[in-house]
Amino acid sequence: MPIKRPPINSPSFFIGKGDGNDLISFGSGQPDLPPPNQIFKILPKFKDFKYGLIQGQLRLREELAKQYPRSNPNQFLITNGASEAITLVFRFLANKGKRVLLPRPYYYSYPHNAKYANLDVNYYDLVNGKIDLDNFKKNMVGCCAVMINSPSNPTGSIQEIPVLREIEKITQEQGMYIVSDEVYKDLIYERENYFFKGSHVITINSFSKTFAMCGLRVGYLYSTDQEVLDTCITYKTHLSMNTNILGQEMAYAALKAPKSYTQKQVAIWKKRRNLIYQGLVDLGLDLQKPEGAFYVFPKFENSSRVVNDLFYDYRMITYDGTWFGSPGRVRFSYALDVSKIKEGLRRLEAYMKKRGLR
Amino acid sequence: MPIKRPPINSPSFFIGKGDGNDLISFGSGQPDLPPPNQIFKILPKFKDFKYGLIQGQLRLREELAKQYPRSNPNQFLITNGASEAITLVFRFLANKGKRVLLPRPYYYSYPHNAKYANLDVNYYDLVNGKIDLDNFKKNMVGCCAVMINSPSNPTGSIQEIPVLREIEKITQEQGMYIVSDEVYKDLIYERENYFFKGSHVITINSFSKTFAMCGLRVGYLYSTDQEVLDTCITYKTHLSMNTNILGQEMAYAALKAPKSYTQKQVAIWKKRRNLIYQGLVDLGLDLQKPEGAFYVFPKFENSSRVVNDLFYDYRMITYDGTWFGSPGRVRFSYALDVSKIKEGLRRLEAYMKKRGLR
Repeated sequence: MPIKRPPINSPSFFIGKGDGNDLISFGSGQPDLPPPNQIFKILPKFKDFKYGLIQGQLRLREELAKQYPRSNPNQFLITNGASEAITLVFRFLANKGKRVLLPRPYYYSYPHNAKYANLDVNYYDLVNGKIDLDNFKKNMVGCCAVMINSPSNPTGSIQEIPVLREIEKITQEQGMYIVSDEVYKDLIYERENYFFKGSHVITINSFSKTFAMCGLRVGYLYSTDQEVLDTCITYKTHLSMNTNILGQEMAYAALKAPKSYTQKQVAIWKKRRNLIYQGLVDLGLDLQKPEGAFYVFPKFENSSRVVNDLFYDYRMITYDGTWFGSPGRVRFSYALDVSKIKEGLRRLEAYMKKRGLR
Repeated sequence: MPIKRPPINSPSFFIGKGDGNDLISFGSGQPDLPPPNQIFKILPKFKDFKYGLIQGQLRLREELAKQYPRSNPNQFLITNGASEAITLVFRFLANKGKRVLLPRPYYYSYPHNAKYANLDVNYYDLVNGKIDLDNFKKNMVGCCAVMINSPSNPTGSIQEIPVLREIEKITQEQGMYIVSDEVYKDLIYERENYFFKGSHVITINSFSKTFAMCGLRVGYLYSTDQEVLDTCITYKTHLSMNTNILGQEMAYAALKAPKSYTQKQVAIWKKRRNLIYQGLVDLGLDLQKPEGAFYVFPKFENSSRVVNDLFYDYRMITYDGTWFGSPGRVRFSYALDVSKIKEGLRRLEAYMKKRGLR
């Protein structure tokens, strides 16, 4: 009897499956390294149980405000991960226009959230992971907002600072919002993150990647525009009330971790980045060298078949570029340890040899 | 210089303000009694941080399945409180029709969530807190779903079992869903809760009220219809990913609390219910005796003025019936201790005397 191979057609197929049992997961985009100790130390004394402020615990917002020049705690809204922040912001944008500009490839939730908010979508196609400004300007016509995701999931690219400055300027001139998804802002190998400035900027961020707290679901949005805040808080009141108060306490504790926590992590990501990048190059694959986040995004013909074959025949989880608007590529998250990356590369080599792909 | 009195026009004005500082809160609907000890005992050993299943931790769903006859863990979806469950379900319903039937008075998030899901609304008006079946049947025409909330927020009423059975039957005959918000199911003074049965039933529940865990935001939906589950899980993937994994562990621990935990709480609620009900009757107010939840909903002319006066002049938080679709009534949550209830009644009496209302 043949083994059943239900086709894999979305990341949901894998989420929560993790690795182990000889399964190697290059799938889910979550750090395997532990969060800072600080977040667990607060647990034994925790005793709260009542509703918190919808906007988020004040002391967490105060701490965040220290990270953003000239900001204040009222300019932050704590959310159930960056995902909820995106949901709220898109819903807000639906009051402002009919269409948003998204990158392609994109984080797979963007188009879904746009659709749920009744927003139509234009795309700007990244060229080898980078924004083509002419293409960007052509496609932003008729949009009320543009979405930027640097470093990018799934490409691992960062955008050039002059390009970001130009976008900051032209969107302001044209009265468009910038929604900047910066959940990987602390995982950049090449330079510091660039913060957009201006009242037309809505920054989305998360504790999930910087502090390895994915399962605890704490994110936030930051804006200097009071209307953005007020509207999103109202929506959140009816959507989910406050974000889990204990998650927020843990996020607050995470912000007290020493700088060295992040620096050490970035050093580890960089080593892994180099390993997997070189490994894939050595296999003859076509890809860009990631500059941030923890993804590589090599080209593969018939990426859907590759993802299915690798899972069913080689016990490897990878994500089909199709899910990110980019068929013909496969996303590998390298948030796993060196020995597993090496074993994964060996399996990939075996698969490619078998299929005559190298 | 006159004291500023910004008009109070939504519950958000109060949320998170709590009581203390001589302020007495009959506002927010959350237990003041502590959660079961069990939920805090697990904290010192907690070490997880990775994404969980979008659907919710398996062992929590297994435990829930024990509470629902003939159910299985795949029929549950764990959410960020009942609020998120309502959001997801309404969005699901928007694929099935254009209109839903809601009770009036209603929990204030219902119409907002309907609007966000692009659903139009019909209302059935409760008569002294009870469903009028003729009115219900008249208004259900053209709806794809009916919403039931028994025990009710804000009325504190429960619906009669024969009426619920009739609704169960006629909705099934007409191919409509029942969305049953049962977050107060364990806080009934008069009888056991009635569980709707059938593949057309979507039950929404929460750990917030039964286990005093409001701030931890764990709720769930239960349905035997696979399409409901699959669709809502997909939506949740893009809305918020998994529910906070630690909140879910705490919810799991709460389910291990002895039955006596709930019984003791209900006994306390009942004593307070009797106290505030009699106190309001003695003040000459017109109201129904609550049969569940922890709300009384007396009539007041110009309820908005009453709520503003009580807050600014008498340091009391109450909720305007207008926010629940029922102007001319004021909601008092009696989730606070007896001495505060008594003091609140004294202040209310002073206010009513001053205004010549008694």
